[in-house]
Amino acid sequence: MSQPPSGSDSMDSGSSADRVLPLGMRDLLPDEARRSARLRSAVLRSFEIHGYGRVELPAFEYADVIGRGLGERNSSAMLRFVEADSGKPVALRPDMTPQVARLFATRLQDWPLPARLYYHGSVLRRPAQRARRRRQTPQAGIELLGAGGLAGDAEVLEVAASTVSATGLGDWTLDLAHAAITPSLLTNVPQGLARRILDALSHRDTGELSKLARRAALPKPHVAALDGLAELHGDLDVWREAEPLLADTPAAAAARELQVLHRLAVDRRLAPRISVDLGELWNFEYYTGTMFQMYAEGPGQAFASGGRYDSLLGKYGSPRDAAGFAVDLDLLGWALDDQSGGGYAATRLVVRGGNGETLRLLRREGIACCGCTADATHYAQRWGFSHVLDVRAGAAELIRMLDGVHTEIACESPTAMVAAVARHLEG
Amino acid sequence: MSQPPSGSDSMDSGSSADRVLPLGMRDLLPDEARRSARLRSAVLRSFEIHGYGRVELPAFEYADVIGRGLGERNSSAMLRFVEADSGKPVALRPDMTPQVARLFATRLQDWPLPARLYYHGSVLRRPAQRARRRRQTPQAGIELLGAGGLAGDAEVLEVAASTVSATGLGDWTLDLAHAAITPSLLTNVPQGLARRILDALSHRDTGELSKLARRAALPKPHVAALDGLAELHGDLDVWREAEPLLADTPAAAAARELQVLHRLAVDRRLAPRISVDLGELWNFEYYTGTMFQMYAEGPGQAFASGGRYDSLLGKYGSPRDAAGFAVDLDLLGWALDDQSGGGYAATRLVVRGGNGETLRLLRREGIACCGCTADATHYAQRWGFSHVLDVRAGAAELIRMLDGVHTEIACESPTAMVAAVARHLEG
Repeated sequence: MSQPPSGSDSMDSGSSADRVLPLGMRDLLPDEARRSARLRSAVLRSFEIHGYGRVELPAFEYADVIGRGLGERNSSAMLRFVEADSGKPVALRPDMTPQVARLFATRLQDWPLPARLYYHGSVLRRPAQRARRRRQTPQAGIELLGAGGLAGDAEVLEVAASTVSATGLGDWTLDLAHAAITPSLLTNVPQGLARRILDALSHRDTGELSKLARRAALPKPHVAALDGLAELHGDLDVWREAEPLLADTPAAAAARELQVLHRLAVDRRLAPRISVDLGELWNFEYYTGTMFQMYAEGPGQAFASGGRYDSLLGKYGSPRDAAGFAVDLDLLGWALDDQSGGGYAATRLVVRGGNGETLRLLRREGIACCGCTADATHYAQRWGFSHVLDVRAGAAELIRMLDGVHTEIACESPTAMVAAVARHLEG
Repeated sequence: MSQPPSGSDSMDSGSSADRVLPLGMRDLLPDEARRSARLRSAVLRSFEIHGYGRVELPAFEYADVIGRGLGERNSSAMLRFVEADSGKPVALRPDMTPQVARLFATRLQDWPLPARLYYHGSVLRRPAQRARRRRQTPQAGIELLGAGGLAGDAEVLEVAASTVSATGLGDWTLDLAHAAITPSLLTNVPQGLARRILDALSHRDTGELSKLARRAALPKPHVAALDGLAELHGDLDVWREAEPLLADTPAAAAARELQVLHRLAVDRRLAPRISVDLGELWNFEYYTGTMFQMYAEGPGQAFASGGRYDSLLGKYGSPRDAAGFAVDLDLLGWALDDQSGGGYAATRLVVRGGNGETLRLLRREGIACCGCTADATHYAQRWGFSHVLDVRAGAAELIRMLDGVHTEIACESPTAMVAAVARHLEG
């Protein structure tokens, strides 16, 4: 249940591949790479179908350009090096959103809004807390630039949720939050003290929280709100308690935004399980409005996250409202494997006997295949082929690797045989 | 004719994007990215259909591991940096074949041969000769590991040629060569002199060539062969002159291999134009047998190349025969645009009016779309949508952006309207 989907992941130590590859880097072998490619297509196809247009972004950029759009935490995760030719520090991207922001601000400013963009690529991070974690991650995401408020939030959330559904993941949780709820209660509190309050809140330490709130001389409703926030997570019922608690505080407006989005998500059944967390604080340096994360059994951390970051584009000189989300395809794949047992096999044939003509005819029918002179069954097993087609004079047999079932194939001519194979595989 | 397909290429100087991005790095905007994605799928689909299995490889590896499998020229093109965490030099790959070799040697050694692997990814090179050249290139290729001789050469060449055909490129040239022909005539010549002979040969300087050949005290048939090689390029007729010229030299065996592959390529009509070049020397440090390049109008350099490199896997401790090829997807895309004018538009709709239900129904039919409240025609034009669907009370109209043709759409219910749109777009 709690294993990464890939045996090749160099999270594990000690294998010979490990000593050959830098820490946290890894390969995908054909079976894993096929699963990964299939997941990627489903995700990107979903972005396309929602009218988003792909952009491709360079693997590295000047560190100061990428860093400008990152929060503190992500900025320190950047893998930097000095570019030999210019002598300038560059960085391998730890996140693609700042690149999209830079692209928008430099090249798409005058295009009609909203810009609907999507991307896919590897992001690289320096291993942070845990030493032996994977460092290169395939990421895909969308950016909706120039669309503010609930309409934008709802569009991004709908694309995100449909995308996860399109991958076939059955059981997952959508967790909603808002980046401005807690900070809006602390606007007049000195920074050091505010930070300690946030720490206490993030550790759900209610005793410490109320002590610090009193020290900050916060108005009574603010203190009550901070006190209560740590416990305000759950389903729509949460709002019965939250509404009166936040009504007389500066957090009321943000809470209302979150409540409307929460109700919309529930009404449209965007996810199998939907929860809200009013005390949630992850990455509030970066987000400015509603935000969300998606969880499932297996990976133990969010496989996707997103929200509103209205201050990002301004950092690139082109202030616009903006929202988006990104999915970590490794973690989503892990969640999928956990639920389906990874039981996916593409139709691919190993052909024993026959000749080049047989292979060409099969391929013309859209059937992936290659020839084999040695032990075709072993070859098929190891390399993930679904069938062996055994061609002898006047007879052919199709063997399904999954269960060993043999099927006689009519074989008057190569063309007839290939047609029969195609019919059988479709049926 | 000789322009790169992309206006966003930072080969051009002076644009604001240039100052923002490191030299040679670039973005792709949606139209370009869509063309690029379409080309990539056609290429990878062709690899799949030939029974090859995908592998994914890390973006950077230890410099000495990658460098081991590169010729001198490619090795100096590596973009190196010191990994902060280990203090070891790592490199962004300038070529993915050494990574596949490393993967095979460390993890697939015991799998049944031949290994049929394919890959896709960005390769990065330091700009060499010309300063302002693109540096990040999307590359895709196959490796056939553990299959020697003509059968292996022919398989790789067939996959390469079918792949180019599958992309729709109409007019292109396959140029065949052999890495051992010239070197086999120089086996006893001191290295410095041999290198000067190779230089003269690569510059087609026949005067200098015969002078140096005499100085190396080469046997008469060797001198005649070297003299003649520089001129031996063209179609099958070349062999009438080449056969007697090379018959009594150590180059005869290599020449016979090349001749057989050449005839096979012609017999199977693998390319619209096929030529052979017996004096060809590109990258003979790396290749050990037959090799090929593919050219087309536009890019002015080979968009794909491949061949046999039987000594590569040995450098990773797992000696096996090996052949493969790689295609530069940017250059192939350029060649395609040059021939087709790039006139490709995906079916994508901007929906004016209607509601969320309309969008959801269209997407369920597999039609990519998004809503638009402002000027839908302008939005569609700029963002590359093929149609505007204009929905009003009881009436809808589909406007094709290509030519402005309006079509009335029956509209009793959202479902009926969406069905009518789908029928119209298919028809």
